[in-house]
Amino acid sequence: MDGETRLHLCVGDPIAQVKSPEGLTREFSARGVNAACIPAHVSSDDFARFMSVIKRVTNIDGVVITVPHKFAAFGHCERASGRARFLSAVNVMRREREGDWFGDMTDGVALLAALRACGFDPNGARALVVGAGGAGSAVALALVEAGIGELAVCDTDAKRCDSVVARLNGLGAARVRSASADPSGYSLIVNATPVGMSPTDPLPVDAVRIDQRAFVADLITRPATTPLLECARRGGALVVSGGDMFLPQKTILADFLLGSPN
Amino acid sequence: MDGETRLHLCVGDPIAQVKSPEGLTREFSARGVNAACIPAHVSSDDFARFMSVIKRVTNIDGVVITVPHKFAAFGHCERASGRARFLSAVNVMRREREGDWFGDMTDGVALLAALRACGFDPNGARALVVGAGGAGSAVALALVEAGIGELAVCDTDAKRCDSVVARLNGLGAARVRSASADPSGYSLIVNATPVGMSPTDPLPVDAVRIDQRAFVADLITRPATTPLLECARRGGALVVSGGDMFLPQKTILADFLLGSPN
Repeated sequence: MDGETRLHLCVGDPIAQVKSPEGLTREFSARGVNAACIPAHVSSDDFARFMSVIKRVTNIDGVVITVPHKFAAFGHCERASGRARFLSAVNVMRREREGDWFGDMTDGVALLAALRACGFDPNGARALVVGAGGAGSAVALALVEAGIGELAVCDTDAKRCDSVVARLNGLGAARVRSASADPSGYSLIVNATPVGMSPTDPLPVDAVRIDQRAFVADLITRPATTPLLECARRGGALVVSGGDMFLPQKTILADFLLGSPN
Repeated sequence: MDGETRLHLCVGDPIAQVKSPEGLTREFSARGVNAACIPAHVSSDDFARFMSVIKRVTNIDGVVITVPHKFAAFGHCERASGRARFLSAVNVMRREREGDWFGDMTDGVALLAALRACGFDPNGARALVVGAGGAGSAVALALVEAGIGELAVCDTDAKRCDSVVARLNGLGAARVRSASADPSGYSLIVNATPVGMSPTDPLPVDAVRIDQRAFVADLITRPATTPLLECARRGGALVVSGGDMFLPQKTILADFLLGSPN
């Protein structure tokens, strides 16, 4: 860290659990780039003013966006990737040469890369995604684009869930439907809700009904192994944690943040 | 750097030359504190909005202020030290437990500590301070408080110079006067202007007229040795650079930023 270090923020609320500051700062260093990823704890009330100010700070080149700001951040991008526009959400933004900010949503492809690394093949598979927020809808889109056979989406907010399902069906690539959180009959179950961050949380799905040899992913990074993953592993499932997902995510984010304009 | 790292910004324009990000980050680490000092390149036009936003970012605990924001930053402190109030300027601010921001101005005592470390004794000495801005007036105040015998202050802005001189004389501790930049007859000459940062700059004082065995200090940190210091050293003077001043400054700033409320 010195006066010439280029900055990439990681903005969220809460912030203590995020992996980008450590992971991306190491990644930049490994690539020989004098840059760092800096955590910024910003509330939803303050987010709009915060973004309008930091977009004008000359030595900030990028922003990683985490809960609960992924939808709001989309509105602060002058340009965005196709998938970000489809989802109206971004998890990363970078300053372009012309001064515009360009956003992307890489949560879906990062989880898919982590799942493939464990042997999961999306082709024709049946998947349940619990949570239709920024990360959940990104995962759902990545699964549809990767050739999933059937996709069920579950969210306590039925309207939000139905909206995501309708738009994914509009792609004409996979059968997508709203569903309950019953995990039986799926070869992939993804928890994309915050349920499991607090020790008093219930399980997001009824873990005893998870098929043996299913893949179970949880996007939560703290605890490193959620109760869902613990139960699923004991039942014979292959599990992918938020930490596992961060391994490909780190490379994807660094490529994007250091990359030339798309 | 991780999600729990506590942040201290260093705000200036330009920013590449600042020493706090590297020096304070190492200092925090040496003290076993998970904290970092982050450079932020912010223009004067953006400074007010920037400060109002970052004061609300929960994981930012402190701000180091550098050129040209030291006077403006004073207005963003709810409370300030006596010397900061005297100077209407701060070079450092920290968040207090109650949420107020408390400011201090340590440039003067930091330079004095560096000078004393080289053997300079302010008691009864004659000093010339060139530059009556934030840093220059802080140095002038520290010299007066340390018992300097006679102090001359020089600034191309005569009104600003006279104002600083009048207020220092009001302390009744030393003879303080506005003067030309002629360095002859002083045992201490301090350059507190940015003249010397650019290779095309003239010397801030006529170096051949500096007394042999005078102390010559330059607050500029880049270049590490300014042409003024180079000439002064060749002429037999003892020199103190911005880098030399940063050694005690780093300790003083870390103590303040990590300290309990005054």
